[in-house]
Amino acid sequence: MKTLGVLLFDQFELLDVAGPVEMFAYLLEEIQIVFVAEEQKLIKSAQCLSVMTDVSLDHAPAIDYLFVPGGMGTRTEVNNPKLISWIKTRAEQAELVLGVCTGAALLARAGVLDHRKATSNKLAFDWVMTQGPHTDWIRRARWVDDGKVITSSGVAAGTDMSLYVIGRLFGEAIRDALIQKTEYIYHQDPHLDPFA
Amino acid sequence: MKTLGVLLFDQFELLDVAGPVEMFAYLLEEIQIVFVAEEQKLIKSAQCLSVMTDVSLDHAPAIDYLFVPGGMGTRTEVNNPKLISWIKTRAEQAELVLGVCTGAALLARAGVLDHRKATSNKLAFDWVMTQGPHTDWIRRARWVDDGKVITSSGVAAGTDMSLYVIGRLFGEAIRDALIQKTEYIYHQDPHLDPFA
Repeated sequence: MKTLGVLLFDQFELLDVAGPVEMFAYLLEEIQIVFVAEEQKLIKSAQCLSVMTDVSLDHAPAIDYLFVPGGMGTRTEVNNPKLISWIKTRAEQAELVLGVCTGAALLARAGVLDHRKATSNKLAFDWVMTQGPHTDWIRRARWVDDGKVITSSGVAAGTDMSLYVIGRLFGEAIRDALIQKTEYIYHQDPHLDPFA
Repeated sequence: MKTLGVLLFDQFELLDVAGPVEMFAYLLEEIQIVFVAEEQKLIKSAQCLSVMTDVSLDHAPAIDYLFVPGGMGTRTEVNNPKLISWIKTRAEQAELVLGVCTGAALLARAGVLDHRKATSNKLAFDWVMTQGPHTDWIRRARWVDDGKVITSSGVAAGTDMSLYVIGRLFGEAIRDALIQKTEYIYHQDPHLDPFA
């Protein structure tokens, strides 16, 4: 049983989280999903909906797959030393680190993207790059697989990246069954980026 | 200012709600979004994440756009007279009714789809049809626009339907700006259904 740890913070982007979680949650026999935030409390997304976290940073269990979403909240959280330090430690311990959209800014700030290839949201790209001067930023990409760390471009691209990761971890047959169940039109080419 | 009323119930499908809400929430100068459930409390989705409702059925404000998601919870809720009666009343009063996935089963049970064209999730289609014997069910469709009532096929199709509705209500320029912001690859042809 692996643990997917989903980091939440005020003003996270709802679909950054919900698209990937929708997909990973079909694998609950293989993965448990834990929602983590600075405190265990209701967290308001940038899209009105408030969601409940399971556990605080200090009490989070061991995380195999660390998931970091984006959203307007990242503009504040890049300057939150406690959160950034937690990301750094947990990313080192994790088997896989996933970043969606401006979640890459948090990963970069924690040093997780140093000397790695990564991507991020197009409209925030220039700002995100300032958070990671030692990163090889790839602007034209639906997602970038750098081995242990995989990052996607904006919001909806995170769902494609997650399906790619599920295919890598659990096989294409399981990924394709998910696609049928959710009637999700999967964009399987990471280099095909209509928003670049 | 219009009100989008999003109905929630235990075991709703997370992406049925989060995809459309992601899009409508970019229009918060035009629309307020209210999350409604039988009681005002935390509601657990079928994908682990628990979300907070704003208001109970009894205290919900006037709703211009009624939104009904699907999910495993619909199998129970079709037999919930209070919820079905609320949907019937609020759908009559609404300007527009949107159903995603097996949300169509709830709408059908409430009589909202009588003598209308509608669609639903492919894998649950036969069951959903039994809930609406007076509906003209369209199996091959990403979504079906029957004027006041618009229904989509499974899960991810709800996001395409929502972008279509946003285009219809607010214009294609606003819809296209949303697509850029969220890097969402929009499938604009309701008849092109790879899952049929």
